[in-house]
Amino acid sequence: MKTNPGNFFEDFKLGQVIRHAVPRTVTAGDVALYIGLTGSRFALPSSDTFAQSIGYARAPVDDLLVFHLVFGRTVADISLNAIANLGYADCRFGAPVFTGDTLTATSIVIGLKENSNRETGVVTVRSTGVNQWDETVLDYIRWVMVRKRDKTSPAPEPVTPDLPAEVGVQNFTVPASLDVQDLDLDLSGSRHLWDDYAIGERIDHVDGMTLEESDHMTATRLYQNNAKVHFNQHSEARGRFGKRLIYGGHIISLARALSFNGLGNAFRIAAIHGGRHVAPSFAGDTIYAWSEVTAKTEMPGRGDLGALRLRTIAAKDHPCTDFPKAGDDGKYPEAVVLDLDYSVVMPRGRIRQSSAR
Amino acid sequence: MKTNPGNFFEDFKLGQVIRHAVPRTVTAGDVALYIGLTGSRFALPSSDTFAQSIGYARAPVDDLLVFHLVFGRTVADISLNAIANLGYADCRFGAPVFTGDTLTATSIVIGLKENSNRETGVVTVRSTGVNQWDETVLDYIRWVMVRKRDKTSPAPEPVTPDLPAEVGVQNFTVPASLDVQDLDLDLSGSRHLWDDYAIGERIDHVDGMTLEESDHMTATRLYQNNAKVHFNQHSEARGRFGKRLIYGGHIISLARALSFNGLGNAFRIAAIHGGRHVAPSFAGDTIYAWSEVTAKTEMPGRGDLGALRLRTIAAKDHPCTDFPKAGDDGKYPEAVVLDLDYSVVMPRGRIRQSSAR
Amino acid sequence: MKTNPGNFFEDFKLGQVIRHAVPRTVTAGDVALYIGLTGSRFALPSSDTFAQSIGYARAPVDDLLVFHLVFGRTVADISLNAIANLGYADCRFGAPVFTGDTLTATSIVIGLKENSNRETGVVTVRSTGVNQWDETVLDYIRWVMVRKRDKTSPAPEPVTPDLPAEVGVQNFTVPASLDVQDLDLDLSGSRHLWDDYAIGERIDHVDGMTLEESDHMTATRLYQNNAKVHFNQHSEARGRFGKRLIYGGHIISLARALSFNGLGNAFRIAAIHGGRHVAPSFAGDTIYAWSEVTAKTEMPGRGDLGALRLRTIAAKDHPCTDFPKAGDDGKYPEAVVLDLDYSVVMPRGRIRQSSAR
Repeated sequence: MKTNPGNFFEDFKLGQVIRHAVPRTVTAGDVALYIGLTGSRFALPSSDTFAQSIGYARAPVDDLLVFHLVFGRTVADISLNAIANLGYADCRFGAPVFTGDTLTATSIVIGLKENSNRETGVVTVRSTGVNQWDETVLDYIRWVMVRKRDKTSPAPEPVTPDLPAEVGVQNFTVPASLDVQDLDLDLSGSRHLWDDYAIGERIDHVDGMTLEESDHMTATRLYQNNAKVHFNQHSEARGRFGKRLIYGGHIISLARALSFNGLGNAFRIAAIHGGRHVAPSFAGDTIYAWSEVTAKTEMPGRGDLGALRLRTIAAKDHPCTDFPKAGDDGKYPEAVVLDLDYSVVMPRGRIRQSSAR
Repeated sequence: MKTNPGNFFEDFKLGQVIRHAVPRTVTAGDVALYIGLTGSRFALPSSDTFAQSIGYARAPVDDLLVFHLVFGRTVADISLNAIANLGYADCRFGAPVFTGDTLTATSIVIGLKENSNRETGVVTVRSTGVNQWDETVLDYIRWVMVRKRDKTSPAPEPVTPDLPAEVGVQNFTVPASLDVQDLDLDLSGSRHLWDDYAIGERIDHVDGMTLEESDHMTATRLYQNNAKVHFNQHSEARGRFGKRLIYGGHIISLARALSFNGLGNAFRIAAIHGGRHVAPSFAGDTIYAWSEVTAKTEMPGRGDLGALRLRTIAAKDHPCTDFPKAGDDGKYPEAVVLDLDYSVVMPRGRIRQSSAR
Repeated sequence: MKTNPGNFFEDFKLGQVIRHAVPRTVTAGDVALYIGLTGSRFALPSSDTFAQSIGYARAPVDDLLVFHLVFGRTVADISLNAIANLGYADCRFGAPVFTGDTLTATSIVIGLKENSNRETGVVTVRSTGVNQWDETVLDYIRWVMVRKRDKTSPAPEPVTPDLPAEVGVQNFTVPASLDVQDLDLDLSGSRHLWDDYAIGERIDHVDGMTLEESDHMTATRLYQNNAKVHFNQHSEARGRFGKRLIYGGHIISLARALSFNGLGNAFRIAAIHGGRHVAPSFAGDTIYAWSEVTAKTEMPGRGDLGALRLRTIAAKDHPCTDFPKAGDDGKYPEAVVLDLDYSVVMPRGRIRQSSAR
């Protein structure tokens, strides 16, 4: 057979290294489409001069665009036969990516465990994205539930890797040249810096963004993510939901873009500790988001920067004025679609609220 | 509060200077998306070689893309709490913009007048977009009706600035290097030059373009214009129209793109004298346009160029064969959505209609 | 009249050369939008480093994007008054196109034949796209049925050009620098090379892509193809189908993008021998495709490359597991929308099916 049937559970071997296809050169076109499809307004990836004012050679590519492009490489090998994308862990953003860089991805299988129904199994991989100099730009663990080709094939020795509950601050990276001393808070779009945020603080990001089929498909195609459920209404009409599912990463991007309103100086995503796509989203849904500051950490060797650990929750057709989240029973309100646990880097300093603009 | 509530009427002070957030580096990606979303076919922003043939270093960025990007910067500060965008005046296009340039915007408050209902007031600003060398690329006056935070707050001394009825030809700019001597009328797409147009001449631009939610939202997000009414179906469903409104600037762009058919050599917008969004547009509407030549002006010191003052009217679901416009009572036919008063620069010369192609 | 009414049958003269308007500089933005709108995953146009590994200076522009951009130039002159796009022949892809290149198109009229109803005629043109160094990047024959302006105007001497049934392999071009010796089959996304394909082999490309109004209009506007039927719902509502027609070239692009799954190493389209848009497609349709290998040819002077002649058939709302095609009576199943006869270049070599990945 000439076509790629995707890998089934039996095709994965512990320690196997998979070199993913289609290296991708990131261009100004990708960056513009990312802004056009998400509405992101963070100043750093929008502006060469702003980037230069804080020590970058020019505007780096949005961290989540890097994530989606690396993730997109892995889909044909890892999750074409996945029933569910179960989770992420230990996701670290590395070297900044600039337009002209070419991203390639590799995965290594670090966990395999057949499910008791013998029809599926859980595959855990560490995926790594590198640039053309083989510098790591992104590194993350993902585990997915994958179909077996044949129920009767023997189960492998079960291996469930230890997953770190969080990425340690020692693994947060920013360019050595980063210098926020002359950060212009008028231009960044927010007067609030690391010292202004308190643990437990909750921020409603206020705005909503309605999903359109064309938008999410264009975003997902841009990432060359070929998971079938996003594109084929003819088959999905007879599927579980009767309609195309939206790539969970698109929801992450929308939540991040909405979070500019309240977190405008959170210009760098350092790590994703974990995340759950709590419920699927569909065209026509309007996405809202809110964030809670769950921890604050100083950045080693960088007195000018701090990290905020955030929990950003996205909900559909439900403004987040009531800060919807999981209850004590772990159950989420019906509207919640995303619960993302991640850390951002922010310049330190305290802005007095009374400062005139 | 960490989120931007937008400025209310009380927040504006006469003479106040507002430096807008998020400098934006314009890229080839923005240019491609602009063509993809509007269908613009003017040769100058489409082609490096054509631009070079008339004295540009390479293709400049479409004037209206510059307008939208500068305008987009101002929305979060000026019009987030606006009830209505009342008008534009004295809009002058300055230095050409090239990909790689970074645009930043500033506004100064030049007028403040509380309305008699005490609930709103009119704010007038002059907004200026500059490139990374602080050259002005765009400069315009806009006035908006903005909500008061508190009905009881005292009214400021009313100031209504004098608005020029038109931008004088002395303020029309083209690059000094511009040289249309070798203009290739096959490549520009029109054989009609400045001398071929007559005052009072009306041109039906013939074609129609149907609006889609995804298209107008992508355009508006590309400009990082975050006015809420364009994006949130969940809240707009309960709003005045029951649906998302289309950014008026997108309609201006469509009318301009349609006007290529009849005004193909109008490669440069020099000024917008004024404009009215007569009625809102929505996804599903089909936009048509026609133009009337309202004045012709020679360009000082440029015997090879002339300016046409145009009134371009856009209508929805109504072909413009009957040239719809305001009646003597100032009322517009129901179909009209835009009435734009602007000037374009066009090479001079007369092409005999019989010239064989 | 200032607007372009398009050419009617009477306007075309045998041997007439038409220089088409609006030269177009191809940019990284066009490339990104092409990926975003089609989902194409071929490694060569996606990646500078992959391109360099096989002897290109950097990633060339996708062959079909070149086709659409050249074709788009010709529409305003050739097919604005066309009732039907009857066919293509002798379409040869020439010099590779890189971002920054500017494409211009010219057509010469090589055939004219009035139809017996005297209301229409068939116009045949050879259209040529060149880059800024006047190198040919694309060359093809197209014939269209065009309205007469006036039924009573005299018919020209009928000339029906001889159309080659195929483009000979001597007219297939690849860059002299192309060197596939180090081709990385992990990165290209397919382990199957020219020697692995057999004449008569049929490949179901499996995946489906649902069409959206916004996607096909954005693609077609990107190409500056202004054929009215794609954009105007207001007029098409009263047309033959009641809705906007999708540019046939968009369907070709989707079929090609889908064909990556099964033909991943077919990185270069060398020629289109012929093609039929069997039926129109509309928003909401889901496009599937399959291909048959109809011939295999060695490439003269290139022992490392071979050409596959393919027939790729696209169908709507019909998975191609049953390989739908025309019957002995020449009639196609209702679902078929495209039947394209073309040749691709592929590296030679045989990969043993048992090779571990």
